[in-house]
Amino acid sequence: MEEDVLILRKCQSAFEKESEEVSMIKAGIIGATGYAGAELVRILLGHREAEIKWYGSRSYIDEKYAKVYGNMFQLVEDACLDDNIEALAKQVDVIFTATPQGFLAGVLTEEILSSAKVIDLSADYRIKDVRTYEKWYQIEHKSPQFIEEAVYGLCEVNREKVKQARLVANPGCYTTCSILTAYPLVKERLIEPNTLIVDAKSGTSGAGRGAKLPNLFCEVNENMKAYGVTTHRHTPEIEEQLSYAAGETVTINFTPHLVPMNRGILATEYASLKKIRQEDGSYAYPNYEQVKAAYDKYYEEEYFVRVLDKGVYPETKWVEGSNFVDIGFQMDARTGRIVMMGAIDNLVKGAAGQAVQNMNLLFGLPENEGLQLVPMFP
Amino acid sequence: MEEDVLILRKCQSAFEKESEEVSMIKAGIIGATGYAGAELVRILLGHREAEIKWYGSRSYIDEKYAKVYGNMFQLVEDACLDDNIEALAKQVDVIFTATPQGFLAGVLTEEILSSAKVIDLSADYRIKDVRTYEKWYQIEHKSPQFIEEAVYGLCEVNREKVKQARLVANPGCYTTCSILTAYPLVKERLIEPNTLIVDAKSGTSGAGRGAKLPNLFCEVNENMKAYGVTTHRHTPEIEEQLSYAAGETVTINFTPHLVPMNRGILATEYASLKKIRQEDGSYAYPNYEQVKAAYDKYYEEEYFVRVLDKGVYPETKWVEGSNFVDIGFQMDARTGRIVMMGAIDNLVKGAAGQAVQNMNLLFGLPENEGLQLVPMFP
Amino acid sequence: MEEDVLILRKCQSAFEKESEEVSMIKAGIIGATGYAGAELVRILLGHREAEIKWYGSRSYIDEKYAKVYGNMFQLVEDACLDDNIEALAKQVDVIFTATPQGFLAGVLTEEILSSAKVIDLSADYRIKDVRTYEKWYQIEHKSPQFIEEAVYGLCEVNREKVKQARLVANPGCYTTCSILTAYPLVKERLIEPNTLIVDAKSGTSGAGRGAKLPNLFCEVNENMKAYGVTTHRHTPEIEEQLSYAAGETVTINFTPHLVPMNRGILATEYASLKKIRQEDGSYAYPNYEQVKAAYDKYYEEEYFVRVLDKGVYPETKWVEGSNFVDIGFQMDARTGRIVMMGAIDNLVKGAAGQAVQNMNLLFGLPENEGLQLVPMFP
Amino acid sequence: MEEDVLILRKCQSAFEKESEEVSMIKAGIIGATGYAGAELVRILLGHREAEIKWYGSRSYIDEKYAKVYGNMFQLVEDACLDDNIEALAKQVDVIFTATPQGFLAGVLTEEILSSAKVIDLSADYRIKDVRTYEKWYQIEHKSPQFIEEAVYGLCEVNREKVKQARLVANPGCYTTCSILTAYPLVKERLIEPNTLIVDAKSGTSGAGRGAKLPNLFCEVNENMKAYGVTTHRHTPEIEEQLSYAAGETVTINFTPHLVPMNRGILATEYASLKKIRQEDGSYAYPNYEQVKAAYDKYYEEEYFVRVLDKGVYPETKWVEGSNFVDIGFQMDARTGRIVMMGAIDNLVKGAAGQAVQNMNLLFGLPENEGLQLVPMFP
Repeated sequence: MEEDVLILRKCQSAFEKESEEVSMIKAGIIGATGYAGAELVRILLGHREAEIKWYGSRSYIDEKYAKVYGNMFQLVEDACLDDNIEALAKQVDVIFTATPQGFLAGVLTEEILSSAKVIDLSADYRIKDVRTYEKWYQIEHKSPQFIEEAVYGLCEVNREKVKQARLVANPGCYTTCSILTAYPLVKERLIEPNTLIVDAKSGTSGAGRGAKLPNLFCEVNENMKAYGVTTHRHTPEIEEQLSYAAGETVTINFTPHLVPMNRGILATEYASLKKIRQEDGSYAYPNYEQVKAAYDKYYEEEYFVRVLDKGVYPETKWVEGSNFVDIGFQMDARTGRIVMMGAIDNLVKGAAGQAVQNMNLLFGLPENEGLQLVPMFP
Repeated sequence: MEEDVLILRKCQSAFEKESEEVSMIKAGIIGATGYAGAELVRILLGHREAEIKWYGSRSYIDEKYAKVYGNMFQLVEDACLDDNIEALAKQVDVIFTATPQGFLAGVLTEEILSSAKVIDLSADYRIKDVRTYEKWYQIEHKSPQFIEEAVYGLCEVNREKVKQARLVANPGCYTTCSILTAYPLVKERLIEPNTLIVDAKSGTSGAGRGAKLPNLFCEVNENMKAYGVTTHRHTPEIEEQLSYAAGETVTINFTPHLVPMNRGILATEYASLKKIRQEDGSYAYPNYEQVKAAYDKYYEEEYFVRVLDKGVYPETKWVEGSNFVDIGFQMDARTGRIVMMGAIDNLVKGAAGQAVQNMNLLFGLPENEGLQLVPMFP
Repeated sequence: MEEDVLILRKCQSAFEKESEEVSMIKAGIIGATGYAGAELVRILLGHREAEIKWYGSRSYIDEKYAKVYGNMFQLVEDACLDDNIEALAKQVDVIFTATPQGFLAGVLTEEILSSAKVIDLSADYRIKDVRTYEKWYQIEHKSPQFIEEAVYGLCEVNREKVKQARLVANPGCYTTCSILTAYPLVKERLIEPNTLIVDAKSGTSGAGRGAKLPNLFCEVNENMKAYGVTTHRHTPEIEEQLSYAAGETVTINFTPHLVPMNRGILATEYASLKKIRQEDGSYAYPNYEQVKAAYDKYYEEEYFVRVLDKGVYPETKWVEGSNFVDIGFQMDARTGRIVMMGAIDNLVKGAAGQAVQNMNLLFGLPENEGLQLVPMFP
Repeated sequence: MEEDVLILRKCQSAFEKESEEVSMIKAGIIGATGYAGAELVRILLGHREAEIKWYGSRSYIDEKYAKVYGNMFQLVEDACLDDNIEALAKQVDVIFTATPQGFLAGVLTEEILSSAKVIDLSADYRIKDVRTYEKWYQIEHKSPQFIEEAVYGLCEVNREKVKQARLVANPGCYTTCSILTAYPLVKERLIEPNTLIVDAKSGTSGAGRGAKLPNLFCEVNENMKAYGVTTHRHTPEIEEQLSYAAGETVTINFTPHLVPMNRGILATEYASLKKIRQEDGSYAYPNYEQVKAAYDKYYEEEYFVRVLDKGVYPETKWVEGSNFVDIGFQMDARTGRIVMMGAIDNLVKGAAGQAVQNMNLLFGLPENEGLQLVPMFP
């Protein structure tokens, strides 16, 4: 019994939650035992206005969550529950679905959306054109009627829409990094959008916690490879968002690579510069200051986007564990191209952190509540 | 100018500091650009009652701290200052010295100690017998007059003494892990202390940020080795503390190993069990429950020590980024020995985290203020 | 067709095999697609007197071997065959079984042994006492009648017996390293064998290529843990062999650890020194030279054992890719113990390399034929 | 003395050298203690027609080589010598210089070239236009008179010229991989050469063994970054060679990245396809078969180039420790581009292996002598 008391004390103090629990946001997670789900747990434990009421996990029902993630020993006492989203919706204010593609589309109903906000970490509602979704994902979309309503939860771009949403489509990890790195230059027409090539590198947690041979330590360690070349599912998602920014259809090359590290995405992006009208009326390629000004126009006020100093390029380790996006760029007069580089932690800004950022927007909280995570180095 | 405003906003909100700064603990760090110093910065940025006023670094004077640690971009705007501890002592409430052996001993004065609390992360005041210090460290101790006063800052063991101290000798990384893993069994006389063998494994950040060939990526990666066999300087520190616990002189074997990972220490400890008087008056080796009871006696109320469930052994990843010590053990009836295992993050509980824990004790704050760090996995 | 010609050329030249293939040793591998099996393939491709005739793999029947191991593209053109050992025995001179525990015991017959030599990389015939085997492995031994005949294939210890064998029990990876590191001192009675504690650390390839969650990159990387504490199956194997050396029953502690690297085992071994009769008739602990002399007595003529210089400790990287065992040691006068350290590549000397060494002995070849592998660094 | 005998035996058998040493190629290495130099040692130890006579290392003069590289214990008994290339030239048949940029240019003389073949692993003679060299390397070229004579030692392209050379400029690691991956398509005019973008990723051994902070384990591990963006010195080298192939001046983007692994380069290359005349007289983009035919035209007979099967992309681990170049590609009809991928081991085909390949050409040996290295996996 004494032990129970202790554990309780540990957990309470670990979360530093308010005593009047009535005022807190009740959150449920479906898919809490995947890496993105576990990161949601880590972040929400430190969030002063939210508490987790449901650790959903089809594979580990009734097992203690801390048995699945040993780091949570004495921090989470709950056992895993099933993925009954209808039951869940009645008990919580917000539902996070960190589930395989197609799950949420298969179960979502108007009733659920009337009961709780839904933040979906899968791709089910990210793409407006259902045929594009079905083509790239090779699955039938079971509830296309909600696609129109869903808001693409890239907060820096869609902040105001997110605030009003019931259903948020949380962006993919590669896409978050790829889009934000190029967005201001596409929007300001400083680059030719159809020359854009995104060469992205990701840590292995992006592949999930499934026990698959290619993700074994000995297969990944001391190794590097490209995969899904020209066919990766994040491609149409990047293209759709950049098309909105460009005001025209954008088609790009996107190549993901697997890197022997746990966390982090680095996107190296290439595009041809576009001549712009200069003060003297002539047309010329934008210079460093003009490009920098475009980045500043969109990101200076953004807490989570850090445009690095001239000549500094992002490193994934500099954002590890945090919700930051670090962006650097380099002009190349020889080729008339610009090289843009962006880095995020794929589990934070690329998944759970951005989901919490969206939750904060949905509930009128400061956008960085629970997300003032200082990057860990080394 | 607008940028200044923004940066300020970012930094303020990053720290969430109170507005009345007068009430906050002013902290200075000497050696802020080593890995332990940088971890102090990371932790103190999230501490609601302390603020850093001095980033001391002999090597980077006048350089912006965020240039030395890119992860701190827009989070720390200060430039590095020198290591003038006398000047520093007049401006702050507490000084952390994350400096090479001998530095603090060479500059510490009564005047400094009268002005500010000092928490020393080096070994200068850890060992009470100055000859032992000088023999193992091969340097002359320049201020032995402060050794007696210094309190060995292993909070779980010396909590009350720390609260009264002016000078805290923050324990070594290996020692923290090695001592806490065996302490209750030594104290309760369940093991023969002189049979203790500590086989410890450490991530590479323990070797510091000095540019030395053996610490290069290609030398450490895909490699493992022992070093300092029978001669490592943490040996006498472990022995001294365990001798206090045992009430007799303890001599042990301690072998450190370098592991290809950034953070984490795992100590695997072996000792022969000691027959104890059982309820029926006979003498027999303690059983699992009796050993568990000894651990619980000392650690059940400890926030930062997690004694794992039966059959569960600690993993360094489960404590990464946090101030936890995870402990597991296994009885071996075949050999009459017990195998104890302890894991910490060497930069947190093994250095900066424990230093902040000591600071909290010194200033009457909740011991886990700023240290409710949820371990990051993966 | 041209392509076929090319491929053939590449393969032939890759192996540099003799033209009169009749004289070559024909080898079959059952379990060729596990890591140990793949390492057998790598080594045998460079062996001038052997050729692989059968790539057995239950999981990949009819698939091209080079599809399973991309590194073998254009080097191995064969497809995988099944594990029909009876059929195989008729076609080859030697069979390597790199199979799960119990497989060989379940299928071995006198007929097979009459047709081909068998080198078993599993544990089925390593332990002479079948009850010990069944207790530690928790499986029934299906052909105990062959245990007596089987020779424990630790070449440095059992060389002459191996030469005469039909069935060789190739030692385990941990055991090879653990035994060879302590063997001369046990044999020469310089240490108390029952004080021996083996703390071993292994790269992850030792866990095999099975798709299991604990072996995923993100679970292993940046992590370290002990496992199988007091219960690991290599324990009785080490004990049996050291008992032969000691002339008495030896009971030890053996603790394996998982290290975030692909290859390599480091065994750190502790034992109390034994007083020996000195030249003047007194009894005293052996000194460095006496211990060194014991190592030299057994290993000076051994090609694959490298006893390092005084004060040098082995590193796993120094033997990577090779069949070497590197051994170092350090006396500790303070505790009366010695710390011995041994390092091997678990897939070479700990599995495939030693198997080929055994094959060389069986067929009267130079023991290091095909095994003159220079360790790769970095 | 007995020990000497043993060591000799070990070394001799390790190398399996012919007894009549007179017929062997005598090789000297200047810069033998860098990573590329050490890899030369590893490879030459297994070469049946060459022996190393001079281990030059300015930093370790008179130290035993095996003290600098523990993996060479008992395999190399020599001590390091200085970098007196004039003295060396009189004693050997071939000199490898694995030295910093500018070293060889500063000491090379006609006399040296008359005495011994020189294979330079630095960049001193790779670039024909001395001004380009001086601009990108920021050093004055001290012996431009030898540039014209030097042969760029990319064997697959310049084989016949290499055979006649006295001075071979061994290509850079990035360049070898980048050029060979695109060469057939540039040569056959299937791509627009000026649209070529090379995004390259390298293991850390490419940064050398210098003790520099950015190469520390904790800085590289769990991290990824680009560096030298638009300014890396391998850019003009790639451009020059591709310009020869294209028959016009080629300007490209090249971006190197640092990856947390020891060995391996992966180059991901993007280019716009060029419409070619089809059989019916129309112009259209080449299809898969036409691109494949171009690769086969140049590489089908090449021992060291492996063009992978359709849909298979190279992984650096598949070539580790070997001299292979693995190439895969993917057409993208959506963008009209092709994505080419090439992988090498930067220390083998990217440095020492290619140097030995050049040596074999220079001395009329089979091109793969000593280079039939089977890639090591895992």
